[in-house]
Amino acid sequence: MPKTPISARLCKVMNTNRAPLERFYSVIPAGGIGSRLWPLSRASAPKFLHDLTGSGQTLLQDTVDRLKPIAGENRILIVTGAAHKTAVQDQCPELSSENLVLEPSPKDSTAAIALAAAILVRREPNVIIGSFAADHVIGGQEAFIKNVTEAVEVAATGKIVTIGIEPTEPSVGFGYIKSGEKLGVGHAREVDKFVEKPSIERARKYVESGKYLWNAGMFIAPAKLLLEVLAKSEPELHDQVQKLAESWGTENQHSVFDSIWPTLKKIAIDYSVAEPAAEQGLVAVVPAKFSWHDVGDFAAIAELQGGGQRNHLAVLGNVTVLSDKSNGILVSETGRLVALIGLEDVIVVDTPDALLVTTKEHAQRVKNLVDSLKTTGHSDVL
Amino acid sequence: MPKTPISARLCKVMNTNRAPLERFYSVIPAGGIGSRLWPLSRASAPKFLHDLTGSGQTLLQDTVDRLKPIAGENRILIVTGAAHKTAVQDQCPELSSENLVLEPSPKDSTAAIALAAAILVRREPNVIIGSFAADHVIGGQEAFIKNVTEAVEVAATGKIVTIGIEPTEPSVGFGYIKSGEKLGVGHAREVDKFVEKPSIERARKYVESGKYLWNAGMFIAPAKLLLEVLAKSEPELHDQVQKLAESWGTENQHSVFDSIWPTLKKIAIDYSVAEPAAEQGLVAVVPAKFSWHDVGDFAAIAELQGGGQRNHLAVLGNVTVLSDKSNGILVSETGRLVALIGLEDVIVVDTPDALLVTTKEHAQRVKNLVDSLKTTGHSDVL
Repeated sequence: MPKTPISARLCKVMNTNRAPLERFYSVIPAGGIGSRLWPLSRASAPKFLHDLTGSGQTLLQDTVDRLKPIAGENRILIVTGAAHKTAVQDQCPELSSENLVLEPSPKDSTAAIALAAAILVRREPNVIIGSFAADHVIGGQEAFIKNVTEAVEVAATGKIVTIGIEPTEPSVGFGYIKSGEKLGVGHAREVDKFVEKPSIERARKYVESGKYLWNAGMFIAPAKLLLEVLAKSEPELHDQVQKLAESWGTENQHSVFDSIWPTLKKIAIDYSVAEPAAEQGLVAVVPAKFSWHDVGDFAAIAELQGGGQRNHLAVLGNVTVLSDKSNGILVSETGRLVALIGLEDVIVVDTPDALLVTTKEHAQRVKNLVDSLKTTGHSDVL
Repeated sequence: MPKTPISARLCKVMNTNRAPLERFYSVIPAGGIGSRLWPLSRASAPKFLHDLTGSGQTLLQDTVDRLKPIAGENRILIVTGAAHKTAVQDQCPELSSENLVLEPSPKDSTAAIALAAAILVRREPNVIIGSFAADHVIGGQEAFIKNVTEAVEVAATGKIVTIGIEPTEPSVGFGYIKSGEKLGVGHAREVDKFVEKPSIERARKYVESGKYLWNAGMFIAPAKLLLEVLAKSEPELHDQVQKLAESWGTENQHSVFDSIWPTLKKIAIDYSVAEPAAEQGLVAVVPAKFSWHDVGDFAAIAELQGGGQRNHLAVLGNVTVLSDKSNGILVSETGRLVALIGLEDVIVVDTPDALLVTTKEHAQRVKNLVDSLKTTGHSDVL
């Protein structure tokens, strides 16, 4: 962590009259374990540190690369757990220490994003931040750039802007965004409200209506506006985050973090900022023109890898596989020979200290199993 | 290997007037890889060297223990591949070097059993040998002792005696023994003929008739008689085996084995001895009163372990397993945590350099996969 709060280099760009995209700073909250991806994803090596697409890069690296052309290499800030410092620095060697914020413990997305906002607003009062999860898979870089650029332009008009995903199915695994009237800028619309993960019946109605988009947790907003909304909805959390940001990079940082951080309220940014802002008419949505996957479980990875093909065996890892009439997904980190015979929709995850075998149908139950590991004395493999 | 052909200790028991059971010597041909049990069973560590029953002992150790009360600890001879010398000696520390015959390469069961017969007949001309595979699972020790004792008594009347297994189903995986008239001794009957693995229709007829028993490859016979039958049916092989036995334990052993062994005909004892002897009316059968399994594949092991229970997960090896609604069999040699979710009739075999996942339905296809390993440059894991 830096000893001087703001470098001279950064002070030079504190220009309040710049074009919207010049005010833009990317924030990547890199948190969450991805329990449904155990035993590949662990507390010590969460989802975003893995290559789940076979691209040769991790999801975090893909996320950074995706944002570079928009924000510029030096305007990407990562918020992650202190335990992942070395791994993140290894994967992102160009990341400066000013742009790496380490959380002493996980405190959900509001703490992470609001702290980033409060740190950046001190560097650049008119900064527009865009927060993008470190562990999503996005296809269509050109479309992504266009969408984010448009979102930044809308944000500059005094809005909190989300990029909504057009539903491909009535999923019950995502929250939805109900869009309203068109705004004057580009494809942006007002957001009527955010709704939580629905029942399947409700999800079908949402999709049929054509008004609902999936909430992928992408928020683009003036940092100042985001903090103002938080100050009203969660005043204590807002004040704590401001104190943390105030101490950031100073001699007091460690003592302030030690006393405040453990007491922070755990709350998702959706509840603390997005929903209250939507009620005040402050939120806009830009419909995504890129493809998006949250790769929440191994079934999702298999489908992504297989491109929807039936009878496809997706293979992640440097592994020799002999497959006789098998399909599904094999993830291997051990270098062992793996032989699969006559398996339908199988999921095999082969790591040095744990082996998982299940099927796509049961992919979601991996999370329950991880929970049971905690209670049965197997925390060493979590 | 011994430098003196017959020890003084052994000469003392060369008494031609002894009771049949005192003439008895057990022979355990410990060969065959058990390809259907890959990757547990390997060329370097075949089936008989593994604990497949969860007894805490290997199949070979179980076989030796089963024969000790009948033959006596010092009257058990093992014929195995030279590559398994150390493993066999480790597992059977009481085995003397005179009772360990090492084959330079696999030459099927006639070579192994006839060589044992020819070696033993030189020690004790009236020896009755009983040959029992090293890799079968037998339950009911008392019944086994009674059956073998009876078989030895029948053998002493000048017969080659097999112990036949009463079929529990119309299996197409075994050869059958057609029994004829009762002999005067105990439950023994004449053998009309041996028949090879039948079609399912024929197997059903065999089982319905009540006259057919499974051929489990157990043969009890005066060694001299067995060699006489071989001399007629396969004179060259017989002469070669006699030369090998003649050299056994002498200075010439290595040179004689080096020149003769590679040229031996590969032929099963069923074809070279049992069938020709049956044609001559020389074979009797004693119906087994013990349970018998050849544990030919992982499905068979799972059934044996589960005792026929449905929804049972059999576990072999020192492994922590978390099973959520899974059944079948897990064999693990790695000590890793194994998690199985929602798998029906699964077979998971977890070894340090190879992992197999399949289902009971496809258990027999493991052999084909092993064959394909040979042709695809993966001989290192065979």
